[in-house]
Amino acid sequence: MGKGKLAVQVAHAAVSSAEQTRRHNPKWLESWFSNNQGKICVKVDSEKELRILKGKLDEMGIPNAIIEDAGLTQLEPGTTTCLGIGPAPADILDRYTGEMKLL
Amino acid sequence: MGKGKLAVQVAHAAVSSAEQTRRHNPKWLESWFSNNQGKICVKVDSEKELRILKGKLDEMGIPNAIIEDAGLTQLEPGTTTCLGIGPAPADILDRYTGEMKLL
Repeated sequence: MGKGKLAVQVAHAAVSSAEQTRRHNPKWLESWFSNNQGKICVKVDSEKELRILKGKLDEMGIPNAIIEDAGLTQLEPGTTTCLGIGPAPADILDRYTGEMKLL
Repeated sequence: MGKGKLAVQVAHAAVSSAEQTRRHNPKWLESWFSNNQGKICVKVDSEKELRILKGKLDEMGIPNAIIEDAGLTQLEPGTTTCLGIGPAPADILDRYTGEMKLL
């Protein structure tokens, strides 16, 4: 995946996850908008790892959005590319992503 | 700038510009949410080119958001990194970005 394509996947995740947070926990979204909108991009080694992480987040009610590419350009249709999480308080997010490597 | 850092800048632009569109032209945002949320990542050769583009968009009332990095990691504080545009109808955006190269 080229870097522009990668950036688009991450942007898609950010917008979609922010929208989930607006619906399910608007205070987290407002607080994040008022505090520099911090974002961190970390990586996983496999789709399985991403799906397990999503399962944990869903279980704890942390808004998130999984992104599947439409497959119009560089990827097969339906390829899972990334997971947007939150915004949520940093101490909560750190429990799930704090040990992961930066992209 | 590493690819994770670049992706974060683009995500920041996407969320901020979507928020501008929510405020100033919510129908464009709704229409985009209902139609696969298309995103394209194109590049400029200089900050001057980015600023000129922003001037044209502002003049035409097309929602956009310029991103300056806080400079906590890889960049100098206040470095302009990218410009989020829209969502807006494709035929309008193409007038401004249709000739630009994909990132």
